[in-house]
Amino acid sequence: MIRAAVIGGSGYTGGELARILCRHPQIELAAMTSRQNAGTPVSKVLPALRGFTDLSFEAQLQTDVDLAFLATPHGASMDLAPELLSRGIKVVDLSGDYRLRDAAMYEKWYGHPHRDLDGLSRAVYGMAELFREDIAGADLVANPGCYPTCSVLSLAPLMASGLVDGKVIIDAKSGTSGAGIEPTRATHHSTCGASITPYKVVGHRHTPEIRMALETVSGTDVGVVFTPHLLPIVRGMLTTSYVVLKKDKNKDELQALYDEYYAGRRFVRLTPVPSIPSTVGSNFAEVGIETADMGTVVVMGALDNLVKGAAGQAIQNANIVFKLDETVGLDFPGLGV
Amino acid sequence: MIRAAVIGGSGYTGGELARILCRHPQIELAAMTSRQNAGTPVSKVLPALRGFTDLSFEAQLQTDVDLAFLATPHGASMDLAPELLSRGIKVVDLSGDYRLRDAAMYEKWYGHPHRDLDGLSRAVYGMAELFREDIAGADLVANPGCYPTCSVLSLAPLMASGLVDGKVIIDAKSGTSGAGIEPTRATHHSTCGASITPYKVVGHRHTPEIRMALETVSGTDVGVVFTPHLLPIVRGMLTTSYVVLKKDKNKDELQALYDEYYAGRRFVRLTPVPSIPSTVGSNFAEVGIETADMGTVVVMGALDNLVKGAAGQAIQNANIVFKLDETVGLDFPGLGV
Amino acid sequence: MIRAAVIGGSGYTGGELARILCRHPQIELAAMTSRQNAGTPVSKVLPALRGFTDLSFEAQLQTDVDLAFLATPHGASMDLAPELLSRGIKVVDLSGDYRLRDAAMYEKWYGHPHRDLDGLSRAVYGMAELFREDIAGADLVANPGCYPTCSVLSLAPLMASGLVDGKVIIDAKSGTSGAGIEPTRATHHSTCGASITPYKVVGHRHTPEIRMALETVSGTDVGVVFTPHLLPIVRGMLTTSYVVLKKDKNKDELQALYDEYYAGRRFVRLTPVPSIPSTVGSNFAEVGIETADMGTVVVMGALDNLVKGAAGQAIQNANIVFKLDETVGLDFPGLGV
Amino acid sequence: MIRAAVIGGSGYTGGELARILCRHPQIELAAMTSRQNAGTPVSKVLPALRGFTDLSFEAQLQTDVDLAFLATPHGASMDLAPELLSRGIKVVDLSGDYRLRDAAMYEKWYGHPHRDLDGLSRAVYGMAELFREDIAGADLVANPGCYPTCSVLSLAPLMASGLVDGKVIIDAKSGTSGAGIEPTRATHHSTCGASITPYKVVGHRHTPEIRMALETVSGTDVGVVFTPHLLPIVRGMLTTSYVVLKKDKNKDELQALYDEYYAGRRFVRLTPVPSIPSTVGSNFAEVGIETADMGTVVVMGALDNLVKGAAGQAIQNANIVFKLDETVGLDFPGLGV
Repeated sequence: MIRAAVIGGSGYTGGELARILCRHPQIELAAMTSRQNAGTPVSKVLPALRGFTDLSFEAQLQTDVDLAFLATPHGASMDLAPELLSRGIKVVDLSGDYRLRDAAMYEKWYGHPHRDLDGLSRAVYGMAELFREDIAGADLVANPGCYPTCSVLSLAPLMASGLVDGKVIIDAKSGTSGAGIEPTRATHHSTCGASITPYKVVGHRHTPEIRMALETVSGTDVGVVFTPHLLPIVRGMLTTSYVVLKKDKNKDELQALYDEYYAGRRFVRLTPVPSIPSTVGSNFAEVGIETADMGTVVVMGALDNLVKGAAGQAIQNANIVFKLDETVGLDFPGLGV
Repeated sequence: MIRAAVIGGSGYTGGELARILCRHPQIELAAMTSRQNAGTPVSKVLPALRGFTDLSFEAQLQTDVDLAFLATPHGASMDLAPELLSRGIKVVDLSGDYRLRDAAMYEKWYGHPHRDLDGLSRAVYGMAELFREDIAGADLVANPGCYPTCSVLSLAPLMASGLVDGKVIIDAKSGTSGAGIEPTRATHHSTCGASITPYKVVGHRHTPEIRMALETVSGTDVGVVFTPHLLPIVRGMLTTSYVVLKKDKNKDELQALYDEYYAGRRFVRLTPVPSIPSTVGSNFAEVGIETADMGTVVVMGALDNLVKGAAGQAIQNANIVFKLDETVGLDFPGLGV
Repeated sequence: MIRAAVIGGSGYTGGELARILCRHPQIELAAMTSRQNAGTPVSKVLPALRGFTDLSFEAQLQTDVDLAFLATPHGASMDLAPELLSRGIKVVDLSGDYRLRDAAMYEKWYGHPHRDLDGLSRAVYGMAELFREDIAGADLVANPGCYPTCSVLSLAPLMASGLVDGKVIIDAKSGTSGAGIEPTRATHHSTCGASITPYKVVGHRHTPEIRMALETVSGTDVGVVFTPHLLPIVRGMLTTSYVVLKKDKNKDELQALYDEYYAGRRFVRLTPVPSIPSTVGSNFAEVGIETADMGTVVVMGALDNLVKGAAGQAIQNANIVFKLDETVGLDFPGLGV
Repeated sequence: MIRAAVIGGSGYTGGELARILCRHPQIELAAMTSRQNAGTPVSKVLPALRGFTDLSFEAQLQTDVDLAFLATPHGASMDLAPELLSRGIKVVDLSGDYRLRDAAMYEKWYGHPHRDLDGLSRAVYGMAELFREDIAGADLVANPGCYPTCSVLSLAPLMASGLVDGKVIIDAKSGTSGAGIEPTRATHHSTCGASITPYKVVGHRHTPEIRMALETVSGTDVGVVFTPHLLPIVRGMLTTSYVVLKKDKNKDELQALYDEYYAGRRFVRLTPVPSIPSTVGSNFAEVGIETADMGTVVVMGALDNLVKGAAGQAIQNANIVFKLDETVGLDFPGLGV
């Protein structure tokens, strides 16, 4: 068994990592850390896990492990990763610290300089369906954000085809769990429970990450207009993206392009209209495509922001890093209803 | 025009008072206070009121008024009311400070001694449908809590009839706006948005208030078991109450009892099954009754916790205090859908 | 008093017309028709209106009225309007029958030929803020769809300015009440209650209506890509639209453009981020604007689909037709929370 | 591998059986039947199962199996079970047909006579935690209703203790998936999506089932007052029950009683306040207890109505029937968030 630690385990992604790992046949949940919950049984903080783990939270990682998932906030991961790597521990970081290859870009969007340039240069961007080969040799994986996962997975075949002019509009909608466990005015039920709210319009940190990923896939410059909205659901995300084709393609041709691109990629499912409930609780993403007037193509993606958008993809990345089948421990269907 | 101030106007009940008062034909919204928003236009904090009021928040009440609604927290109202009363200003207090007639009971449930025993002795409990005559002569009205309003209105005819043994079980369900504007873990959307959560089981402060009101109505001792639950809706409340009859009555007889009791009370509507949407946005409460086995009667009540359960009833009380028709400014229907 | 009938009064828009009209000081709700509820008191079908109307549903309009609101399905209105008009009754039609000026376009999108070409040629498109002068002289008003109202109101100042290239992307999100009162698989709570679902992607009937309105406003051809989504809320709609400017304008300049365009239009409110709750229950629409990269502008609109998106705007149109102040009976704020 | 068929597989419980069985290590999903979907791939009707099953729906069961789950409506199961049993196929029926031991009671509550008295007499009531020994030898298991599972599991230790007087009040709240896949006015999102609605007050068919189970557990007559409510969530159920103790017990004593009663029962979890999200997607039920005034005890239960309240418990029953560990294929945690 590969032994794994979840660092910063008292938030939603930490809990989700534990939920999946406690049933993983080849990676063992060996430790969870949390400063605020140090000494407390994990199953007290995460009651759904009672009977599935006997661990208590450690204040700092004491246990010997092969792998660490960093479910720590932006800014904290880059202080933890170097030391873990120096101990020979593989790292999958779920924060934004290692996602943007360019340190200047990081400083611009995250508001402070990057403090681990060495790590930044060796980190691999873990969009598993797109960069599996790079991930296989990595010891530091930057796990993508939820919005980038949903939108890039749904746009990648088009972008890779060279058919698209260099501009993408992404209208994204996320459940509230994407905003984390800390209560705020925005996620207060009375604020958001009967509404849909645009936020950080044109200013969300996932914008440069999406752009970087799409540029890597397409090999060209890409402009991204990205508008996130907060949905009155807990889990689940939908992105509706709009691109213009350089030359006419009908729906069947585009469908074929997608089928081929994702052949053998178990966790991406093509469908006429993506459905959040089909993905909830699972590592599957659904992608659908529709042609509109004026050469515009509408691409829709759906996934569970806590699984494929966070913890599930992180475990998929760990599987790849350790040369396991990428689906091990993740091959269960979404709730459907 | 009667001139009114809303003291503590930056929470939900303050906002709701303003929403209704800005259209009231005989009471004018003349001032709103808020320490945290002092100097800010009211319509900036409450954007739905843009075009309906030009007021800015005052740090403390400077404006000359006839009437003050205290939308202040428990413990703050009793420090404000005496001074307002001494200036000849009528007071309707929406906090719990003047609801429990017994100062010892207040201290037990609110955790600190009462500091205005004089006010406590002259305050009238403003359950408008039950105590209209007392309210008419009052200068200090304790506006009832949302749960007491819903459950007492639905139980009062039975309790007043002497038919009920002295014990009441109330299973109550409230929308999240009842918990106020401050974000907490309990009202975080990801916590409560796909659940119904019992809270303060057997320990909620509205229990002694309900008991006091039912004892007043029935003239006997009453035992109350009260279980509140948090619902994943913003506005609206339902109480399902269970009592045992001392002697058999069929549903028609009970219905007749209710019809008679609430004859001429515009804001209580009898219906087979109360509906929250029919009451939302309005000062109406709906009450329904069903007979079950073993002499048990199931009584259901529904209302909008921010209107009939707070601001609407407060304005109804003010109407009564000032000898206006009690429906003035409140006589509009709920949204229905 | 102007006497009004609501034809087809058992759906949501019929109910909403009644809710507002029963408090309108200058238009009296004089009759409601419903084949399926004929003979039943209106307040039995719409319990929120108990105490506000004593009408019973008529099978067909018998009562003498000055004005009829057609809350009938597409295809039924065009069979009713001519006869009503011939009796001198002004008609505001809430269906799609008279919205598209072009009969061929109507047949293409609604699936049957138009049967009242005369009516079609005299009907006025009742987007009240844009075409008030035309409406004032009309006897047949086509009340706009909810999606067109929200998106056209938010885009009109830009389109009218000549600044925009001829293409608009509209990503629209609607509460379920927009789908009407008849239960379907799509609006079954278990289907839609924890999801957001794109539907009729690139094929919704409101697309040509939006296009027609934007072309009227801009005086040029406009291409529209329109994607509606079903939201898990009951009331409320948000549209997020994307256009590209022909020449650079900063946010302040655009803001100024909007301020000027909507000066004196009480029901359109400019705001940084439109909020559905601020509009719920009211006839107000909120519009916000943000500049993005590549000359793209993001325009957001929010409103209550049953009020400003249907019944409220219909009453606003009736006010204009009868030369009343357009705000009469509609000048109340949204719930806010 | 034990080979299983799901009969009537196009509803929610059929889909949920398939979701769990497709990952069950010892029971194989070998066939699904559906008249309306005959010939269609299962994964087309249940898109979340794409990649997990290659089955197509059969119109009638053709495949050779050891076990059949009847996810058929009340009234249909009793026409199917005898023939299946005669072929040596074990049957777990998820309808109400074999739950009530008394045929007269069945006729009273289900509105038609029972047509398989022989089956009725040999059927075992499959409340797995309470009647495991009886289930182990059975070939026809009546899988309990969702409400009975939630309320009986939470009340059983008290009822078995002989401490309770013979009367129980159960205030139950269910997500909409409990009402099935067919759209109705009650489950239309616009009706139920921002409300909580009592329904079938004192008249729900689960009442006699709860009573039968509690009488079996307690060995005495039990009176049940049962009020179901429809919640605006998709999955999940909460019951809040009220009983009076014959003699005083404090909370610790009651807690000890529960701990002992459920020792070794993996799927019942004791907790201060049961949480629906902790159970969603899983076969776990949570139970909590609180003492109130006047000897009253408040007992709360939570579970996922589609899993522990239907498909999960049915599979647990099948495990027991086939002498497998009762947790096989079910031992995964709830989503938690």
